[in-house]
Amino acid sequence: MQITNENISHGGRQLVVTHDSNACNCEMKFSVFLPPQAETKPCPVLYYLSGLTCSHANVTEKGEFRAAAAEHGIIIVCPDTSPRGDDIADEDVYFFGTGAGFYVDATEAPFSNHYNMYSYVTKELPALIEKEFNADMSRQSITGHSMGGHGAMICALNNPGTYKSVSAFAPICSPSVTDWGKNAFTKYLGSDESTWRTYDTVALIEDGNKLPEILVDQGTADEFLETGIRISLLEAACKDNGINLTLRMQEGYDHSYYFISSFMADHIAWHAKRLG
Amino acid sequence: MQITNENISHGGRQLVVTHDSNACNCEMKFSVFLPPQAETKPCPVLYYLSGLTCSHANVTEKGEFRAAAAEHGIIIVCPDTSPRGDDIADEDVYFFGTGAGFYVDATEAPFSNHYNMYSYVTKELPALIEKEFNADMSRQSITGHSMGGHGAMICALNNPGTYKSVSAFAPICSPSVTDWGKNAFTKYLGSDESTWRTYDTVALIEDGNKLPEILVDQGTADEFLETGIRISLLEAACKDNGINLTLRMQEGYDHSYYFISSFMADHIAWHAKRLG
Repeated sequence: MQITNENISHGGRQLVVTHDSNACNCEMKFSVFLPPQAETKPCPVLYYLSGLTCSHANVTEKGEFRAAAAEHGIIIVCPDTSPRGDDIADEDVYFFGTGAGFYVDATEAPFSNHYNMYSYVTKELPALIEKEFNADMSRQSITGHSMGGHGAMICALNNPGTYKSVSAFAPICSPSVTDWGKNAFTKYLGSDESTWRTYDTVALIEDGNKLPEILVDQGTADEFLETGIRISLLEAACKDNGINLTLRMQEGYDHSYYFISSFMADHIAWHAKRLG
Repeated sequence: MQITNENISHGGRQLVVTHDSNACNCEMKFSVFLPPQAETKPCPVLYYLSGLTCSHANVTEKGEFRAAAAEHGIIIVCPDTSPRGDDIADEDVYFFGTGAGFYVDATEAPFSNHYNMYSYVTKELPALIEKEFNADMSRQSITGHSMGGHGAMICALNNPGTYKSVSAFAPICSPSVTDWGKNAFTKYLGSDESTWRTYDTVALIEDGNKLPEILVDQGTADEFLETGIRISLLEAACKDNGINLTLRMQEGYDHSYYFISSFMADHIAWHAKRLG
């Protein structure tokens, strides 16, 4: 692990880190904010998974999470959204390939060589955090935006007990039935749609996977609300399957970091309660 | 005036605006955050002047000012740092020309055609804010970072009574005696250094200009502390001339927005008290 950037901020340390990833078979980069409390005691961890086109940098610069993370003593880990590199298969579109790993483990060539973001986020990255930082791994939670909101929910649904809580900002709720997701899942996972269900929040809920609760903020002026996101599918699945969804429709907000940053402190406080 | 971007954020409206500037003889761009209170009543105004290489965008994206501005009901106005355009005189360095207007009215050709940021910030921009937004112009304050901290202090020192309060993050304290400033002042203002004093905080204080108080945050790990900034010159001038300087040396902080954003809410709360 190499620390490539370090800035003191809000009393803590904001790092950018690179490391060789086995899961993704390439060098990966992420950011981690260590609150001041981590100097003296193990702190809980909140993962933030980013959306299409983003890297660790967007939320690190624009997410406005550090004040609340320092207040509550939470380590914030922000991975990249895909493997990256000249020798890594890609397509020249924003919704597939680089910046668009969809938090799956790809099974189809050539993507299966590197696009294994599910294993990266749920296994390799937590192991690295445990090894390198003063983290209490018995207290982990997860959140994310858009494609990363999808990622947060599928990680939580597939790993009961691992995360104390899950929330999302404008999440892609059912990639199997929306344009961005159908394209990506076909290429990463193949055309047998039965294999897609383990990476689709609505399908996972329909198939009986449980979560006690989910917090979601969603802007009413989000241009992707009726296309990529389809929040109503999540609402229906949660209602039908006894999952306590707190869905807050935020009037006039769009899909940008101006939206995310407005509710970031709320989400961190909500996770902090559940992280104990 | 044209609104080129609008995002709802923290309950208010974050706008980016372009307009034809008489002072700078070109189109200028700035950002303005209207807190929710501005929907129903005139709100006080805090100007934030940015540093070398920046535009309105850096602080608008990374400054973390909206939560505090919404809490206190303050309009935040973030102008650009220079005129910009293909036909505007420039040099290919980061510390002069585009992105480096130094908040002076240039007297030397060819810069005097456009580089009139002092008149822009102290006269033209406030007049536009008064005309276009629900602003209480009897309650204005000013702050800034680095070159913009210099700008904030010279605006306040030269216009007693106009600003209720002034603060700065890592300000250039005496451009007349530091490399960045000597280069810029020679080209913008000519070689007669007596004309520089009206744009130099330390010289203005030595010449008897008064302020009741200044709040300054300064990182101890700031790479420019002993070169461009020279905070000790400000300390000495304030001490010798009865200006109440609250200088907070912030251990380990650098010159970046990770530093600025850490103390932004403090500065806004401090100005809010003085804006009433």
